[in-house]
Amino acid sequence: MANDRATFGSDLHLELRGTRLRAGLMDALREAVRSGRLEAGTRLPSSRSLAADLGMARNTVADAYAELVAEGWLTARQGSGTRVARRAAPRPPEPPAPPSPPSGTGRGRTAALVHNLQSGTPDLASFPRADWLKAYRRALTDAPNEAFGYGDPRGRPELRTALAEYLARARGVHARPERIVICAGFVHGLTLIGEVLRARGVRDVAVESYGLWLHDDLLRRAGLGTPALGFDERGTRTEELAGLDGCGAVLMTAAHQYPLGGALPPDRRAAVVDWARASGGFVLEDDYDGEFRYDRQPVGALQGLDPDRVVYFGTASKSLAPGLRLAWMVLPRELAREVAAAKGAVDWSSSAPDQLAFAEFLRSGAYDRHVRAMRLRYRRRRDQLVAAVAAHSPETRVSGIAAGLHAVLTLPPGAEQATLRAAAWRGLAVQGVNRFRRPAVPPTLDGLVVGYATPPDSGWQGALRALCGVLP
Amino acid sequence: MANDRATFGSDLHLELRGTRLRAGLMDALREAVRSGRLEAGTRLPSSRSLAADLGMARNTVADAYAELVAEGWLTARQGSGTRVARRAAPRPPEPPAPPSPPSGTGRGRTAALVHNLQSGTPDLASFPRADWLKAYRRALTDAPNEAFGYGDPRGRPELRTALAEYLARARGVHARPERIVICAGFVHGLTLIGEVLRARGVRDVAVESYGLWLHDDLLRRAGLGTPALGFDERGTRTEELAGLDGCGAVLMTAAHQYPLGGALPPDRRAAVVDWARASGGFVLEDDYDGEFRYDRQPVGALQGLDPDRVVYFGTASKSLAPGLRLAWMVLPRELAREVAAAKGAVDWSSSAPDQLAFAEFLRSGAYDRHVRAMRLRYRRRRDQLVAAVAAHSPETRVSGIAAGLHAVLTLPPGAEQATLRAAAWRGLAVQGVNRFRRPAVPPTLDGLVVGYATPPDSGWQGALRALCGVLP
Repeated sequence: MANDRATFGSDLHLELRGTRLRAGLMDALREAVRSGRLEAGTRLPSSRSLAADLGMARNTVADAYAELVAEGWLTARQGSGTRVARRAAPRPPEPPAPPSPPSGTGRGRTAALVHNLQSGTPDLASFPRADWLKAYRRALTDAPNEAFGYGDPRGRPELRTALAEYLARARGVHARPERIVICAGFVHGLTLIGEVLRARGVRDVAVESYGLWLHDDLLRRAGLGTPALGFDERGTRTEELAGLDGCGAVLMTAAHQYPLGGALPPDRRAAVVDWARASGGFVLEDDYDGEFRYDRQPVGALQGLDPDRVVYFGTASKSLAPGLRLAWMVLPRELAREVAAAKGAVDWSSSAPDQLAFAEFLRSGAYDRHVRAMRLRYRRRRDQLVAAVAAHSPETRVSGIAAGLHAVLTLPPGAEQATLRAAAWRGLAVQGVNRFRRPAVPPTLDGLVVGYATPPDSGWQGALRALCGVLP
Repeated sequence: MANDRATFGSDLHLELRGTRLRAGLMDALREAVRSGRLEAGTRLPSSRSLAADLGMARNTVADAYAELVAEGWLTARQGSGTRVARRAAPRPPEPPAPPSPPSGTGRGRTAALVHNLQSGTPDLASFPRADWLKAYRRALTDAPNEAFGYGDPRGRPELRTALAEYLARARGVHARPERIVICAGFVHGLTLIGEVLRARGVRDVAVESYGLWLHDDLLRRAGLGTPALGFDERGTRTEELAGLDGCGAVLMTAAHQYPLGGALPPDRRAAVVDWARASGGFVLEDDYDGEFRYDRQPVGALQGLDPDRVVYFGTASKSLAPGLRLAWMVLPRELAREVAAAKGAVDWSSSAPDQLAFAEFLRSGAYDRHVRAMRLRYRRRRDQLVAAVAAHSPETRVSGIAAGLHAVLTLPPGAEQATLRAAAWRGLAVQGVNRFRRPAVPPTLDGLVVGYATPPDSGWQGALRALCGVLP
């Protein structure tokens, strides 16, 4: 019974496909109403006569009519038969679909983006699919039934326990599982903290001179001001905190300033912690790429110095992949309950199987192996970047290279815009330092932020050549 | 090299474990500072002498000191040696960990919860682990590299396409992939809509007389009022909408009222759509268990009647498992862009591998098979519930049984609280109807909401017996 065809009323055709007769008839009637072929008020043939036309059982048609009455498409009134309901009017034709927004962080100015050296994304081609699948399989097999339920808003205890162990070992973070809250990315965590701080009466959260605007936007949306701390060749001037009135927290990338790349020097680390202790404020430590340090051991997290005043944020977005939407916060005692409540009130948690898979990935050592392998690979790229720039543009200084997935290439004063235009012309997506400058900070630097982790291996050499081609 | 022991200063012992000497030394020093065994200002032995004590290379100790200076634990000053930093003060001992909040929707009053008939959760033991894993494996294998990146805030296109097809077929929803937004649960979606409606100047969102308080809370938190529509034996009095001034939307469970269980009758479905068209308002259709209808085909979604005025919400929380945190919205043309922007501004998306796995699960027919199997199983339980209640308590009316994962047992006036106490005494977790009553609605009903899908098969008969034991 492939395509029956029924005619009734004037020239009405109903296409019936497949074997599920009643469902097919209902679909066809809905579509006829939707498209306007069956107008509001039109009286339908009796179920008996339509059944005869279609070679169906009468009950099938009568049931279909009854369902559509229940759904509101048709009306049935004693003596007036079954009619198309008034409100099921046809809809005007739709405009063509709007184009998808660009995915990722891309804002390339040219249509043909060939090379991508934008920072913020690891090499997605290196996602350890086989190892991750292995962890996922084991996690799904071993999961208790309750893991598939709503669960604790802080996240799965298995993952919080594995993270507490890992963070202590790899980042010097003093974490207890009950102080850890799993979230769907740094931005989710920052939103929760912003909400909690605002509810506590905090007016301002200080930020660094350079950083992601998205973070400022989020804090401002929570009703917080975002004064920017000064910046010099030694990094963020945290000593300025003591002079900021009404500032209840500071957002820092202490281990590897984003995007300029330095580690906060010891005296300035000390100044942040001193300020937090003296003022009762909090340090929001965004440890986005803490695992990737090339020349010596990673600089331990600030959090270890004072777990009661530092909120530590970590993420799998740089070490594994942003697409997993897995991140974590380690909270001071004071805030742990409030943040868990803020998250729990709206029950956003990450997928439980993913959390269990990540716990297994950590416990089995697969995470350490992956990070080590990626560290070697990114370090090799960094060395190639430094060598290529030295060869093609000896004047250009490469900085921020001790760690992370990006480097900063300093350009001659005023040269940033022209260089970015030349890059776009060559199909090279790369960002300028000034894109990360907070609005109130005067422009003093020109340069490129080069995300050398971004391209897959196959695209790396080409991207590097394109980059060298636009340097002075 | 299992446990070396070093003594210096007065009686200070550093435990060194494992083979990573420098890291182990750093951990031990941090721990000694944290615990107060090394006091602020204490001068450490020279790297040479500590190295000799520990049998380490001097460089290892010097490097560890340098790292800890960089991290702020120690200070090094010319002529003064290496000292414990002032700010790395010991932390007071912590109070014992607070107990975990109860997981799921449980608010049982007894410590020993033996039987769980609370509504809102499917049988978690029936999660189709093997089929889901198969879909996950295929999805992870086939995923393009870009799927591991940040992605479109609306969600993966593969999943939105698969859902558009499924929702049209199974629920009569008129969906185009670009109007679908994936979210992490109904509550996430409702939060986004609340934010968008508020930003559009909407003052109130009407709700039904009975429902989840969490949903009211969310809307109120967005700054919206939540007037409740009246309720009678035919369901929610949607005709009252026309008399509500300043009401910009209405939240409805049209296919299966939660928790009372009826389907909204045709004239009242019509009244909702009429109101939305006349007033320019929106219907927020919470189709939480639309797949589970037992006595005839599911009642199609209201959305099909007017996709330009209805926001459709669906979820995998009842059909698969809440732990996946997968839900979806189908948006009217007017709202699609604003909701995608609200979601994108904070980049909360569900895990990309999960979304791809769910798309594969839908496409392969595994979802249909699972829903069919669960429908049979839940229907059997429903029939057993009805039979058991009829046998033990013939006066008790069972309603709301044509669909869904729960039923309502009507109790004699005033008997609800006593019955709940008797249930708690027997270790039976079950909810009263009045727990779902909006504050402004006068109490007129007494009854139990029985989530018959909740227990695993092994617990079902016992739960049923416990329930019958507390009925009049």
